[in-house]
Amino acid sequence: MPVEALYWKDGRLYVLDQTRLPEETVYVTCSSYRDAAEAIKTMRVRGAPAIGAVGAFGLVLGALETGGDRESFLARLREIAGVLRDTRPTAVNLDWALERMLARAVETLGEPGALRAALLAEAQAIVREDIEANRRMGLFGRELIPDPARILTHCNAGALATAGYGTALGVIRAAREAGKQVKVFAGETRPFLQGARLTAWELMREGIEVVLVADNMAGYLMAREGLDLVIVGADRVAANGDVANKIGTYSLAVLARAHGIPFYVAVPLSTVDLRTAIGRDIPIEERDPAELTHFRGRRVAPQGVAVWNPAFDVTPNELITALITDAGVLKPPFGEALRRAVGSGRRE
Amino acid sequence: MPVEALYWKDGRLYVLDQTRLPEETVYVTCSSYRDAAEAIKTMRVRGAPAIGAVGAFGLVLGALETGGDRESFLARLREIAGVLRDTRPTAVNLDWALERMLARAVETLGEPGALRAALLAEAQAIVREDIEANRRMGLFGRELIPDPARILTHCNAGALATAGYGTALGVIRAAREAGKQVKVFAGETRPFLQGARLTAWELMREGIEVVLVADNMAGYLMAREGLDLVIVGADRVAANGDVANKIGTYSLAVLARAHGIPFYVAVPLSTVDLRTAIGRDIPIEERDPAELTHFRGRRVAPQGVAVWNPAFDVTPNELITALITDAGVLKPPFGEALRRAVGSGRRE
Repeated sequence: MPVEALYWKDGRLYVLDQTRLPEETVYVTCSSYRDAAEAIKTMRVRGAPAIGAVGAFGLVLGALETGGDRESFLARLREIAGVLRDTRPTAVNLDWALERMLARAVETLGEPGALRAALLAEAQAIVREDIEANRRMGLFGRELIPDPARILTHCNAGALATAGYGTALGVIRAAREAGKQVKVFAGETRPFLQGARLTAWELMREGIEVVLVADNMAGYLMAREGLDLVIVGADRVAANGDVANKIGTYSLAVLARAHGIPFYVAVPLSTVDLRTAIGRDIPIEERDPAELTHFRGRRVAPQGVAVWNPAFDVTPNELITALITDAGVLKPPFGEALRRAVGSGRRE
Repeated sequence: MPVEALYWKDGRLYVLDQTRLPEETVYVTCSSYRDAAEAIKTMRVRGAPAIGAVGAFGLVLGALETGGDRESFLARLREIAGVLRDTRPTAVNLDWALERMLARAVETLGEPGALRAALLAEAQAIVREDIEANRRMGLFGRELIPDPARILTHCNAGALATAGYGTALGVIRAAREAGKQVKVFAGETRPFLQGARLTAWELMREGIEVVLVADNMAGYLMAREGLDLVIVGADRVAANGDVANKIGTYSLAVLARAHGIPFYVAVPLSTVDLRTAIGRDIPIEERDPAELTHFRGRRVAPQGVAVWNPAFDVTPNELITALITDAGVLKPPFGEALRRAVGSGRRE
């Protein structure tokens, strides 16, 4: 059973504190929308689908804190959604989940009491559908995995990054469940070490073979040891199929192309943003220089050094072999395929 | 004035403890060849030319500890050279320096007293010549640097990696001394963080603009911000121009090629190994998994995780725009150019 990144119980949201993994498995309690916003901002929870779900429950918490008549309740709900949305700019799932929640509130007839119940039901539906989407991506994606397979992944696109099961790691799980022999190389993913701390932990828990490597070993790994594929998740897919994902993804895509290795992106349709035309238009979050200059409070670089710390990069669609979505495996050109898949999706 | 990685004084070798930079500038005292071997093995000193120099002085220390007649003295010297050589396998400068030292001992007439004096003179000549070689590489290499220039480097190929001035950073220093405006991006260089700890520190000390980035940002840096060149040092150059250097170098070379960015290797002839035909024949050191799983004693990855930790990789000659040597800038094909340069060198 994969670990749960979050769950709702008795009017509170519990979020696994991923900054403390793998040393400790501790859930933080979110009793207000501010707690939920803080959990996203400080990356206690990360991964596009997971922060979408936490955003949705954050709005439920906000609704529970809000009274008044229907009109003022909805106005306040929009303000709270704005606070939640502003925590992190790149992953579109947060936007997507909050818009879906607001739409549900507006559609629901009656007074705040009825709206609160509808919002909770909607957040729970988002979680349920995300897990289902991941399962479907697993079934579609596992057909692309040879047996045996040597796979490189980056960051954590697992159960920890979603409501459950995982996107890229979901495909790997599904291949394994189908009896395929998989060996996963996990890039440690500087500066936040999601690969070392989260992906290695998640795979080891389930007995899937994993080898930890530094990000800068990827090229040599491809040239010397050989790989069958690279698979990653995504934080936002533009209408043309360009993909924003954890910093380092683009380097891997270029390296994979140079070595003739397929490069797959596993992504639910909730991460596809048809309103963003191309990758260049995706806002890229830059985070605190201390992520690079310090390690758990200890300095590792000279005082006052300048730092560039983009949290994401953009991989152009031409470097992507296929998008593995919950509506099937999409091949290039992605533009038309994405429009069709999202259009037929059950997103509202 | 660049920092000194090592110096000899009153019969002892002083080695800057680079594992404690940038927090502390502390020299460890080597009173025996075992101390010198330990300083290399634990990477208190690193960088191919610097470990060559420490190996040479290590042999001087060994000679000071050794008595007997000429015959037994020389036999013991060979044993000590073997111990020093076995500390690290990839950088050829260690081999080169020890062979040069042994040859000097054999050529020198007389008893151990005379041989000890000759060995000290030879070690001092190795240091002096390395600094001169770096200066020459700087003069040749700076012609390749545009003004202004945005430069990416990896690991530390500076004064800290040599007897002084530096190879890749020597070229950057020389460009700066010629009045060129340079901005250096330093890859942090996992797992040992030579870029964050050493290169950033070395450049900041001299007021050269430096921006720290994670290794996995290189591709995005090239695509989004643009670079004029990549320049690195080397641990061994094979006869065909293939280059072993710090892990991550090969990825940068592939990325540079994909973005049309020149990729230079600054390397003294003491790092060229004509006896190794091609890069595949260069022994690649694999180091302790703890370098990846722990940070200064603190675990950052799950207990028992498998790790692949090659300390170096090999960049094939076809990805290298030019080799900047102390005998001039060599362009491809490198094989004949290297043979000629080494043949005309003043290495014996």
